[in-house]
Amino acid sequence: MERIIECVPNFSEGRRKEVIERIAQAIAEVKGVQVLDIESDPDHNRSVITFVGSPEAVEEAAFRSIKTASQLIDMDKHRGEHPRIGAADVVPFVPIRGVTMEDCIALAHQLGERVGRELGIPVYLYGEAAIKPERRDLAYIRRGEYEGLKETIATDPDRTPDFGPAKLGKAGATAIGARPPLIAFNVYLNTDDVEVAKKIARAIRHSSGGLRYVKALGLLVKGRAQVSMNLTDYRKTPIYRVMEMIRREASRYGVAVTSSEIIGLVPEEALLDAAIYYLQLDGFSYDQILERRLFPPLP
Amino acid sequence: MERIIECVPNFSEGRRKEVIERIAQAIAEVKGVQVLDIESDPDHNRSVITFVGSPEAVEEAAFRSIKTASQLIDMDKHRGEHPRIGAADVVPFVPIRGVTMEDCIALAHQLGERVGRELGIPVYLYGEAAIKPERRDLAYIRRGEYEGLKETIATDPDRTPDFGPAKLGKAGATAIGARPPLIAFNVYLNTDDVEVAKKIARAIRHSSGGLRYVKALGLLVKGRAQVSMNLTDYRKTPIYRVMEMIRREASRYGVAVTSSEIIGLVPEEALLDAAIYYLQLDGFSYDQILERRLFPPLP
Repeated sequence: MERIIECVPNFSEGRRKEVIERIAQAIAEVKGVQVLDIESDPDHNRSVITFVGSPEAVEEAAFRSIKTASQLIDMDKHRGEHPRIGAADVVPFVPIRGVTMEDCIALAHQLGERVGRELGIPVYLYGEAAIKPERRDLAYIRRGEYEGLKETIATDPDRTPDFGPAKLGKAGATAIGARPPLIAFNVYLNTDDVEVAKKIARAIRHSSGGLRYVKALGLLVKGRAQVSMNLTDYRKTPIYRVMEMIRREASRYGVAVTSSEIIGLVPEEALLDAAIYYLQLDGFSYDQILERRLFPPLP
Repeated sequence: MERIIECVPNFSEGRRKEVIERIAQAIAEVKGVQVLDIESDPDHNRSVITFVGSPEAVEEAAFRSIKTASQLIDMDKHRGEHPRIGAADVVPFVPIRGVTMEDCIALAHQLGERVGRELGIPVYLYGEAAIKPERRDLAYIRRGEYEGLKETIATDPDRTPDFGPAKLGKAGATAIGARPPLIAFNVYLNTDDVEVAKKIARAIRHSSGGLRYVKALGLLVKGRAQVSMNLTDYRKTPIYRVMEMIRREASRYGVAVTSSEIIGLVPEEALLDAAIYYLQLDGFSYDQILERRLFPPLP
C-alpha cells in the first residue's frame, strides 16, 4: 500500500506572486511530491499550499519551503489580518493513506528538530504533535503574534520553543504539527442579520460549549449572514451533524439555510458518510461503489 | 480516455454452483474483461453476473456467456419465482466511462444479430436498444414467460423476435438491450403492515403515476414493511428525491423510515449527489474531492 501524507503549510505572503511561486517551486522540485493546490489571500497577506507524497518526500519538501520562505519574507515588514508568528507560519502533516497519525507526529518532530538546527528558526510543536499540552492549540502559540513573541521569547519560559533558538529573526517562528484532514465549511442563511450567524456559531463551536471538532465564526458575506467553520476532525464530528445542528439553531430564529460551500479540498469519505446518513443506508460498504471496483486503490 | 462498458446478464440458474461458475469462467476468460460481482438467488433460481471492459471485449464475453448458459441450462426443467424467458434471460449493456448510450445500443444490436445467427436463439431488443417501442419494457417481452412464449412465438406476430428463429429451444429466448446504471434500493418502515409499503410503492412508481425512473413494490421482509425499488436512471430521478418522497408518504400513514439498503453496486456519483443535495452544497465541483486529485481518472 502506497504511503501518502498531505502537508498544508501557510506562508505569510499573499500579495507578491513571485515569492509564492518560488516557494511552490521549492516544493514541486522534490521527487515524489505533487502540489495539489495553491491559494493566496491578499487581505490576509497569506498563502496556503497543499501538497502530497511519501513521508520522506513530504518532509524534504516542507523543509525546503520553510527555508525558501525564511529567505524571501521579512516579518518586520509583514502586515495582514490573519494572526501569524513567522514567514512559514504553520506546517501541518495530515495522514491520508497507509500512514497513521503517529507517523505524522514523528515526521513533525523530525522536521522541527532539523528546522531548528539547520535554519536557526524557533519551532513550536502543535496539534497532535504537541509535547506541551497547551501548545495543541495554535491560537495559544500565536498569542501576541510575531511582534509579541519577539519581545517575550527570550525571557518567558512559556514561550521557549521546542526546537531551535529562543531568539526571533526576521523569519519569525514556525509551528509544526500533525492533524486530521480539515474541512473549511461555510453555511449561508436567508438573513442579513449577522447577529443570528454569530449566535449559531457560538452554539455549535467547541470553545463555547458546542461540538468537539468545530471552530465557528458568524460573518456577513456579500450581504448574507454566514456561519464560517473549520471542521477539524470530520470522522468524530461529521459534517452532516454540524449541518443539522445549524438548521435546528437557525429555525430557533425563524431563519433557514439557503446554501453551503466547501472551500478547497474535502476527503471523499466526508461526503459519502453524509449520503449514508441522510439516506439511512444501514450496512452499506464502500466496496459497493462501482468506481472502487473499477479502479481499486493503488497497491 | 479508456472506454468502459458494464454488462449485467441474468441467468436462469441460482442453485447449481458449477453451472454458475462455468458461465462466469467463460466471461473471465476474455482478455480485457473484469468480473466485478456474482450474485445467486436460490429462491429465484437465478444469478446475476456483473462485468466490465472495453466494448469489444464485453461483447465477446457476453456472447460466450449466452452460449455457455444455453448449453448448460434446460428451460423445460427450470423452476423459480422470478419471471424469465431463457437460460440467458436478459443481457443489458451500461455505459460507464468514455462511451455513450448510443455505443451500448449499437453493441446490443450487433450481439443480438450474432446470437440469433450463430446460436439459433430468438433475441428481443429491449430498453434503450428496443426497435419496437413496446419492447422497451422487459415485462412486456416476458409476458407468459418461457412456457407461454413457447406456445405463441411461431404464430403471434407480436412475439416475432428481432433476431434469430421464431422457434424456442430448451435455451429459451434472450432479451438484449441497453440501459443507464440501475440502482437496487430498498427502504424499511417501522411497521409490519405491508399495505403501507404497497401504498407508498404505488405513490412513487412511474407505472401508477409517480416518478419517471422508479419501479417499486411493497413487500414484507423479515417482518418489516419494505418499499423495494429499482431506480432506472439515477441522474434524472435521483435517489435523494425518491427518499424524500417516501418519507413524506410514510408520514401520511404515521409511519417512519428506519433504514435503507443498496443491493449490489452503486455509481459513486449517485451518493455524492445525495450529499450535495442534503448539505445544500451550491457550486461544489467533484474536483474538490481530495482523492480525485491523488488518483485522477485513467487517461
